Amino acid sequence: MKTYRVDLEPIGRRAEVEAGKTLLDAARLAGVELVALCGGIGVCGGCRVRLAKGTLSQPTQNEVDSLDEEDLANGYRLACQAVPQSDVKIDIPPESLTMAQRLQVEGKDIEIQLDEIVKPINLQPPIPDLDDLRADTTRLKTVAAGKGIDSLEFEIPVLGELSNQLRAQDWKVRLALRGNRVVGAVTLEEPLLGLAVDIGTTKVAGYLIDLGTGETLAKTGVMNPQIGYGEDVVSRISYCNEHTGGRKLLQQKLVDVLNRMVEDLCTRTGARREQVVEAVLVGNTVMHHLLAGLPVRQLGSSPYVPAVAEAMDFLAREVGLHLSPGAHIYLPPNIAGFVGADHVSMVLASEIWNTDQTVIALDIGTNTEITLARSGKILCCSCASGPAFEGAHIKDGMRAAPGAIEKIQFIGGEFQYQTIVQRPPVGICGSGILDAAATLLDAGVLDSIGRLRKDAPSVRGEGGKAEFVLVPAEDTGHGRDIVVTRKDINEIQLAKGAIRAGIEILLDEAGLTAEDLDRIIVAGAFGTYLDVRSAIRIGMLPDISLDRFSQIGNAAGMGAKQMLVSAARRREASRIAQREQYIELSTHQRFSKIYMKCLSF
Amino acid sequence: MKTYRVDLEPIGRRAEVEAGKTLLDAARLAGVELVALCGGIGVCGGCRVRLAKGTLSQPTQNEVDSLDEEDLANGYRLACQAVPQSDVKIDIPPESLTMAQRLQVEGKDIEIQLDEIVKPINLQPPIPDLDDLRADTTRLKTVAAGKGIDSLEFEIPVLGELSNQLRAQDWKVRLALRGNRVVGAVTLEEPLLGLAVDIGTTKVAGYLIDLGTGETLAKTGVMNPQIGYGEDVVSRISYCNEHTGGRKLLQQKLVDVLNRMVEDLCTRTGARREQVVEAVLVGNTVMHHLLAGLPVRQLGSSPYVPAVAEAMDFLAREVGLHLSPGAHIYLPPNIAGFVGADHVSMVLASEIWNTDQTVIALDIGTNTEITLARSGKILCCSCASGPAFEGAHIKDGMRAAPGAIEKIQFIGGEFQYQTIVQRPPVGICGSGILDAAATLLDAGVLDSIGRLRKDAPSVRGEGGKAEFVLVPAEDTGHGRDIVVTRKDINEIQLAKGAIRAGIEILLDEAGLTAEDLDRIIVAGAFGTYLDVRSAIRIGMLPDISLDRFSQIGNAAGMGAKQMLVSAARRREASRIAQREQYIELSTHQRFSKIYMKCLSF
Repeated sequence: MKTYRVDLEPIGRRAEVEAGKTLLDAARLAGVELVALCGGIGVCGGCRVRLAKGTLSQPTQNEVDSLDEEDLANGYRLACQAVPQSDVKIDIPPESLTMAQRLQVEGKDIEIQLDEIVKPINLQPPIPDLDDLRADTTRLKTVAAGKGIDSLEFEIPVLGELSNQLRAQDWKVRLALRGNRVVGAVTLEEPLLGLAVDIGTTKVAGYLIDLGTGETLAKTGVMNPQIGYGEDVVSRISYCNEHTGGRKLLQQKLVDVLNRMVEDLCTRTGARREQVVEAVLVGNTVMHHLLAGLPVRQLGSSPYVPAVAEAMDFLAREVGLHLSPGAHIYLPPNIAGFVGADHVSMVLASEIWNTDQTVIALDIGTNTEITLARSGKILCCSCASGPAFEGAHIKDGMRAAPGAIEKIQFIGGEFQYQTIVQRPPVGICGSGILDAAATLLDAGVLDSIGRLRKDAPSVRGEGGKAEFVLVPAEDTGHGRDIVVTRKDINEIQLAKGAIRAGIEILLDEAGLTAEDLDRIIVAGAFGTYLDVRSAIRIGMLPDISLDRFSQIGNAAGMGAKQMLVSAARRREASRIAQREQYIELSTHQRFSKIYMKCLSF
Repeated sequence: MKTYRVDLEPIGRRAEVEAGKTLLDAARLAGVELVALCGGIGVCGGCRVRLAKGTLSQPTQNEVDSLDEEDLANGYRLACQAVPQSDVKIDIPPESLTMAQRLQVEGKDIEIQLDEIVKPINLQPPIPDLDDLRADTTRLKTVAAGKGIDSLEFEIPVLGELSNQLRAQDWKVRLALRGNRVVGAVTLEEPLLGLAVDIGTTKVAGYLIDLGTGETLAKTGVMNPQIGYGEDVVSRISYCNEHTGGRKLLQQKLVDVLNRMVEDLCTRTGARREQVVEAVLVGNTVMHHLLAGLPVRQLGSSPYVPAVAEAMDFLAREVGLHLSPGAHIYLPPNIAGFVGADHVSMVLASEIWNTDQTVIALDIGTNTEITLARSGKILCCSCASGPAFEGAHIKDGMRAAPGAIEKIQFIGGEFQYQTIVQRPPVGICGSGILDAAATLLDAGVLDSIGRLRKDAPSVRGEGGKAEFVLVPAEDTGHGRDIVVTRKDINEIQLAKGAIRAGIEILLDEAGLTAEDLDRIIVAGAFGTYLDVRSAIRIGMLPDISLDRFSQIGNAAGMGAKQMLVSAARRREASRIAQREQYIELSTHQRFSKIYMKCLSF
């Protein structure tokens, strides 16, 4: 039987399908999960892809109905409808991938030139005997000098094992050099590794990097254990203020999780933690201060100044993080009390500091930081958007886990949803919460000031108690209705209103309107999975043409990875922090007015 | 009634005595304790002093009998006999002071030029407000730059409290600067302090220093708690080799004691430990390695090489020592596996690196290190002299505590002794043990190969079981005989033989004999209290004229104090370590022969 080869880009997967099978079949065969809320009958439009090369069947009526003319003209098709007529190459836009799928490909690294901070050097010093009683370090220094490394110095903790190691390894050793300082020692066979971490208020993402190639060997994500002491940074500061030793405890909790993360990453790649000789950690200013053991009290009251804004650099074991005994932690600079090193890292990775365009980049989280770049000038602000899009404060909210409703569409008078890994629904995660508000507006169930219409189908109760039944109990995984309440809608309004107000103030400060924007870059975990159309529909993001939006994944983490392997990127981060002009919203004279306006849909 | 003024030097005390009173009376009046085994009747010769200025009574017959002609010609007198005829100034040689008295004056500092390693800077940065959101460190940097300190950097642990401190101190702060690094922060009223410690195998001596003046504010001595894990360095290395975590445990035990020492020193001077911004610690190579967390296994087997020989410099809290949060520990360089930083420190303080004379300097302890300096060349070696002179392995041995026999003389056919603070005797401390051997030889009780003559008075038992009753039970503080056994004598022989063999090998290597020596400097606690005549009598030290000997007290501690306040002294210490030529005795071809010869009396 005749078969065609289907290349799926940018993921880089390939399938061989029998003639007559659709692109969706090909994707499934290749293990690539596409969004298909309608089950592949051509009505939801979720599996929209672009033909890059080769020939497909003619568009079906469903495709003509689902896709707009411009899309069709640009080669966009529905994967469930289009059938290869030749070998083809297909481009899959991120929004057509399921979240599980996107998690796998998320954060494709921008290739940057390595500019190593820690370098390996292999040494084989002469073995001591009664005619050569030099100290171990003296003999290493001498052979290093012969290789052009002058005045080698040793981080003290490295020396704790080095003498035993030299003897166990038959006097052959690979040292990790940070300038002229030895920060680690491994065998000649072991590559040097680095750890990049993005410490979110809610989630922590870690990456294990080969420092010799820049390659990401493994990645992992865990919850921030400080959540038990306060959902947002303000409540964590309060916790520290009110509890003796609270600051130390929150640091310890975080470091414990980082240690487990390192163990996990090492186990998965067959590495030893002694190979991890450098770490770059990014986080907002409060996460940064708690990690570094800095006071946070002054971050909790006006004028909200950080203890430290400059980049910091210290031994990992000083905070209890167990890597190579001499490994350093590098923390990029902070900008302000509520615009931290993670935002600097995101701006770095997004490259907007380096563009002639007018661009807004935002990282949506419990706190949302926004930067506006325009002809070399950069402005930023921070909005308290709250944890609604992390699934918190939402009645049936949950984190992005199997069974979470991640996508909702209102198609043909019906609410259709898709869950993570197709499990029966048990709750709604961030992107689903956003879609819920957008589709309720589309369906006319929700009005512009956020009220649920009591006469609408599936709405019960009224006023503040009104709720919309999205999934009746009999269809859920836990046998309880999944609902969207009036209170949920209110939380969404507060969150989206804060974000939009931040955007408007920055535009206003720069004397621009949304139409002047060449691009809006949406970063962060939630930013990656959200449906931009829904975000525009509810007014969280400005209504400009969809093709001006980019969703770039965990850019803060990506920036951290770049700073792990490039000294030039570290210098750039410091320049960004210095150039960013911070706009304090809480004292901004127009903020309240604009915020109020942004609350409605 | 007529009175005379008596100045007692070098202690710097003064008394006004009635005409007719002796110098001994004057000393007692001034609170200065002189040796007076005979009770002041002019027969023991213990209270020998020198007239520096003024007129005394003519020498008595007792003085003529006790003092030799040269002494008399040089103005030496017995304090119990000499009576002032005018205001006088008296020089008291150290051997005429009791141990308790010597402890008070021990280690008079050589005045050195301050060349500060850590300096104070007083800052008063502007207070943050909504128009000035700079980070705390940024505002401190700016005001420091205004005072000529560029690019201030902060030790991370200092930042852990600095923000709270600034606010509590009304934005007035004194920073401790080490180069451009901030290692501590105190109030404007608090002076910066330093800690100098000499870590002996048996004893630990600590000094609290005002870094602004170099003055010693307080000192203290405690036992090294590692003694419970091995009396000497070899057994401590074995302990570490045989016990998992043993190295860590010994480090912890030592650091615990250092922390208590700091607390004690601070309490006594009304200081806070946050004022202690720098520490210099010296010890032998094993003490050095255990403190710094370095492996010691390689120090326990041939060829006995240290892990590190260079000077080390690290955060005190890295080893758990609690000073100012950013305080550093400086460890001077080691020379070899058994010639450590304490010896370098002693050589530094004794100034023999800086002399044209031919000098031997030795620091007697459980391990004895010896340096021979001759016209700019310096040779050193190390001998395992054992803990006999610390009172260990001696039947009635004890440390220098109240009731310990510290001095013994054989006068008029009688053994006379003096105890510390005149308590009834309960044992014999190091200097007494040395005197015991010397007086037993004088009395003809002991023969030259170390046997107790069984027919001598007070000797009981015979052969290996023989013992000499120094003090019968009825005269002791605990009701048991205090004895010197054949085995004790054997321990003394091993100790003194090792020390003398080391001296002979160094002389031999330099092509000299003892007569070529301009000086022999005896340092260390035991070295300060020993009677040089006894040491010569038993053959531990060469028989050269007494005036060529100097007993300089805890020179290692003094060197540590100098390195605390002078960068120039640190550089000199490194030069000394590089210049010292180490002679390994264990493989020296003539060592065994010389050692055997040195065992006899």
